[in-house]
Amino acid sequence: MTTRTTFLGLGAMGSALAVAALDAGRPTVGWNRTPHRAQVLGERGATVADTVEDAVAGDGVIVACLYDHESVHQVLDPVVARLSGRTLINLTTTTPNQARELAAWAAEHGIDYLDGAIMAVPAMIGGPGSALFYSGSTSVFDEHRALLDLWGESSYFGTDAGLASLQDLAMLAGMYAMFAGFLHGAAMVDSVGVPATEFASRQAPFLAAMTGSFAHVAAIIDAKDYAGEGQQSLEFTQAALDSILQASIDQGVSVEVLRPVRDLVRRQIAAGFGKQGSDRIFEELRNTR
Amino acid sequence: MTTRTTFLGLGAMGSALAVAALDAGRPTVGWNRTPHRAQVLGERGATVADTVEDAVAGDGVIVACLYDHESVHQVLDPVVARLSGRTLINLTTTTPNQARELAAWAAEHGIDYLDGAIMAVPAMIGGPGSALFYSGSTSVFDEHRALLDLWGESSYFGTDAGLASLQDLAMLAGMYAMFAGFLHGAAMVDSVGVPATEFASRQAPFLAAMTGSFAHVAAIIDAKDYAGEGQQSLEFTQAALDSILQASIDQGVSVEVLRPVRDLVRRQIAAGFGKQGSDRIFEELRNTR
Repeated sequence: MTTRTTFLGLGAMGSALAVAALDAGRPTVGWNRTPHRAQVLGERGATVADTVEDAVAGDGVIVACLYDHESVHQVLDPVVARLSGRTLINLTTTTPNQARELAAWAAEHGIDYLDGAIMAVPAMIGGPGSALFYSGSTSVFDEHRALLDLWGESSYFGTDAGLASLQDLAMLAGMYAMFAGFLHGAAMVDSVGVPATEFASRQAPFLAAMTGSFAHVAAIIDAKDYAGEGQQSLEFTQAALDSILQASIDQGVSVEVLRPVRDLVRRQIAAGFGKQGSDRIFEELRNTR
Repeated sequence: MTTRTTFLGLGAMGSALAVAALDAGRPTVGWNRTPHRAQVLGERGATVADTVEDAVAGDGVIVACLYDHESVHQVLDPVVARLSGRTLINLTTTTPNQARELAAWAAEHGIDYLDGAIMAVPAMIGGPGSALFYSGSTSVFDEHRALLDLWGESSYFGTDAGLASLQDLAMLAGMYAMFAGFLHGAAMVDSVGVPATEFASRQAPFLAAMTGSFAHVAAIIDAKDYAGEGQQSLEFTQAALDSILQASIDQGVSVEVLRPVRDLVRRQIAAGFGKQGSDRIFEELRNTR
């Protein structure tokens, strides 16, 4: 018989996770702080639990998808005595250190803990392009792989429970910076009346093509080979960024997004590396250790 | 007979442009401040000019690819009397306002002026993926289209001579922000010993896929439809960016690149738009008008 799965937290994402389990024919229990979302799930065949205590009674794996780190404690601390020996898969969005804190709390109470981060929006769950990152208990990842794979492509990063969140946030860091840069460029051409849609039609294929050089950049970083041949120098990059900043100012566009990038380059030049490759700003970003 | 083309400035990019003209069988004249690069071009069949005055004597179109805006004046001001009635295509990297200044200077001296910006590295000139942006004289663009198309895909943006540079710098703004974000993400996972090459293998396809949403984002911006359904709210984005910043600090990574993006979001929330879509930070970037 398939293991019963209890879902704590039925917001848009929690509901999507629970529906995927239901659709796969799994015995499913749902609880939510406000009962409406649980009733909707109940109509699709889930057992609705009125309290967290009811929800975690009995056996089976517990999946948490709550508002934040603090709400995980608020929901689970009162029933922690019932969780000893159980399995908890926590898909609540947390920082790496918050995931590590929850893993330590779980270990203290005899709970087998797997932390997860979801690289998808609710509508993507169970469909193409959905990816989930996991870290923490290896045995939970291995034993419940069939459940995890219902939601998207599953990747496991190691026993440090913070790793899934860290990998997720690192991916999002790149994404938010890219979108900010795209909006900066769109603001520049907006100053002469060019629609953002027209700019997007050029910017999207250009940036997509440029991601093709990430592997080369990464190889330079891993080898610390910033003095090698054929790299765009920090001095060249500073001149290009200075032109972008000056043009932005001239056109009435804020330079908040790109000035810090120019300043990273400038500091590396001041440190004597002007002729070396621009990817050396990686060292500046890691320099707060 | 094909028009003679004079190239002023034979650095890596100027030489690539001149070689493309030579390879197409065009009569080519080359001048460079230091003579070695001109000699190399001479060995490939170009006429080598020892002085700028010799280079611009006679007829034909003049192509400038010099160090910067100031060097265009240094090279051309002494011979400006010879340039009246001639055609100048300036591919020197400038800001939009510098291009506009040169266009005004050219008009004053009876020179037909086309400004260009090159979206390629020298090795790409004449090959696939090379794109050049132009603005200024429509007639120069139309009459010399065969020459321009030797270098890459030619796009014309309008009579305002600053537009090619503006479009170029706007594209590069997105690119530099994307690379800075990628390096930030790589620094985050480097803190737990993950190689940049491993991170790049996930980040590159993820960001390439995300460029697919630029058209949708742009449509929201053009319609100022930030209150429409289904958008990621500024409040949600702030929480995500706060998690990225906290995780970066915890892992010893500088937050210089992403803190300004979070601050843009925060200011839009403070202005009362927290429930609206995150693309609204575009308005914050344009708010310096």
